[in-house]
Amino acid sequence: MDREQLLYEGKAKKIFRTDDPEVVRVKYKDDATAFNGEKKGSISGKGELNNRISAFIFEYLGKQGIPHHFVRFLSPKEQLVKHVTILPVEVVVRNRAAGSIVKRLGLQEGQSFPRPVVEFYYKNDDLGDPLINEDHVAFLDLASQEQIRGMRQMALKVNRLLTALMIEKGVDLIDFKLEFGVDQEGKLLLADEISPDTCRFWDHQTGQKLDKDRFRRDLGEVEHAYQEIWNRLGGEKHV
Amino acid sequence: MDREQLLYEGKAKKIFRTDDPEVVRVKYKDDATAFNGEKKGSISGKGELNNRISAFIFEYLGKQGIPHHFVRFLSPKEQLVKHVTILPVEVVVRNRAAGSIVKRLGLQEGQSFPRPVVEFYYKNDDLGDPLINEDHVAFLDLASQEQIRGMRQMALKVNRLLTALMIEKGVDLIDFKLEFGVDQEGKLLLADEISPDTCRFWDHQTGQKLDKDRFRRDLGEVEHAYQEIWNRLGGEKHV
Ligand SMILES: Nc1ncnc2c1ncn2[C@@H]1O[C@H](COP(=O)(O)OP(=O)(O)O)[C@@H](O)[C@H]1O
Ligand SMILES: Nc1ncnc2c1ncn2[C@@H]1O[C@H](COP(=O)(O)OP(=O)(O)O)[C@@H](O)[C@H]1O
Ligand SMILES: [Mg+2]
Ligand SMILES: [Mg+2]
Repeated sequence: MDREQLLYEGKAKKIFRTDDPEVVRVKYKDDATAFNGEKKGSISGKGELNNRISAFIFEYLGKQGIPHHFVRFLSPKEQLVKHVTILPVEVVVRNRAAGSIVKRLGLQEGQSFPRPVVEFYYKNDDLGDPLINEDHVAFLDLASQEQIRGMRQMALKVNRLLTALMIEKGVDLIDFKLEFGVDQEGKLLLADEISPDTCRFWDHQTGQKLDKDRFRRDLGEVEHAYQEIWNRLGGEKHV
Repeated sequence: MDREQLLYEGKAKKIFRTDDPEVVRVKYKDDATAFNGEKKGSISGKGELNNRISAFIFEYLGKQGIPHHFVRFLSPKEQLVKHVTILPVEVVVRNRAAGSIVKRLGLQEGQSFPRPVVEFYYKNDDLGDPLINEDHVAFLDLASQEQIRGMRQMALKVNRLLTALMIEKGVDLIDFKLEFGVDQEGKLLLADEISPDTCRFWDHQTGQKLDKDRFRRDLGEVEHAYQEIWNRLGGEKHV
């Protein structure tokens, strides 16, 4: 049955058709990849934890007024979301320097930016997701001027809301990546996932990394880190 | 004497002090480098041709209202310019796809952009002059918001003016790189050079490359291409 319904399989999730053409079922996988697919592995429990964490965060953002694709939790590894056309732009917001930007611009890991830094990347695996600017978004026809403005605005609002949520749990939000989609009515919605796969979370007290960098950099205790984020968000209470 | 006065030696030019602290002497070299200094060579006659071409273009742009550093022609390889503090941002304007952007974004060499594409690069040899966006310019403190606006505006105006100048001579302006500086009064001035080292010029009829790509890509007849640009601009008439 699953086979017939499979619309798309990505590196971390499978997207299935449902009876409702406006809704798809997302199944989170334990597969982990990094460095544009060069590094591959599996993190046991990741699919379930990311499904729970992402559902929780989308519900929280929705209550705060962010329009999003999340519909409802379905099972430990599955959720229903609105079927959108994903804009091939990854929107990154950075509060502190980590990951690619450190080497690229000669920064110190962990240094704070005076204001959040917003970046657009061309979501294109063949090209290695290159950094682009708004002129590139325009001529590549990846998004309209209005969508660019909307994505930037929403990304900065998500940053404020998610920073506030996490700091209450003793976690610093270092940076994160968002994807946006357009629904049948042409409305811009926050889509994809928000999880330790797509955010950098550092324990506020110890600075310990509680995200996919544990996998990328072979720091060990990867599943534990994802579980820790879920626990801090209230864990178990959400089914 | 030259030795005492040398303020700075770059890859293509030497900058010397003069008696006037607000003016420096630029001496153009025949040295050619590419790919961030990986490829090195010499193009006989380049220093003189670039000195003449750059002087000619700055005078033309100045008459059209672009504030710039050029003061006067001095000798075949030398010109006087206002001493400015160069902002470490390279501003690139592209009318058609060529060079790094082709591979980076999977384009066809020569494809036209519907509108000119403006890019900022961090002028930093150690980092290989990475592409940056306006948020990076801001947190790296490379330029103020007003300077960013001014550079973008002037770059687009230079594009219009230089495209018009060159097309009259049967040359298509594919792309170019500008540098800007700030003078003693804090005024933003177009600086550095505008030459076949910093522009891509293609013969309008044949598509022949008349710029540094002949050196970068070992196409031969490099000096001839620079001479051809100078001839088209009126050559010899300017001393
Ligand atoms: N609401 C949605 N509707 C349609 N596609 C979506 C939605 N949310 C996310 N997607 C897409 O589902 C695909 C699978 O996700 P993922 O495994 O993370 O892919 P990737 O390997 O591209 O990161 C991605 O292309 C993602 O953009
Ligand atoms: N008017 C000016 N005042 C001061 N410095 C300038 C001026 N115009 C250009 N420069 C700088 O002179 C240096 C020498 O030029 P160049 O040899 O092209 O250097 P580079 O190797 O950095 O490309 C560069 O750093 C350039 O930015
Ligand atoms: Mg993904
Ligand atoms: Mg130079």
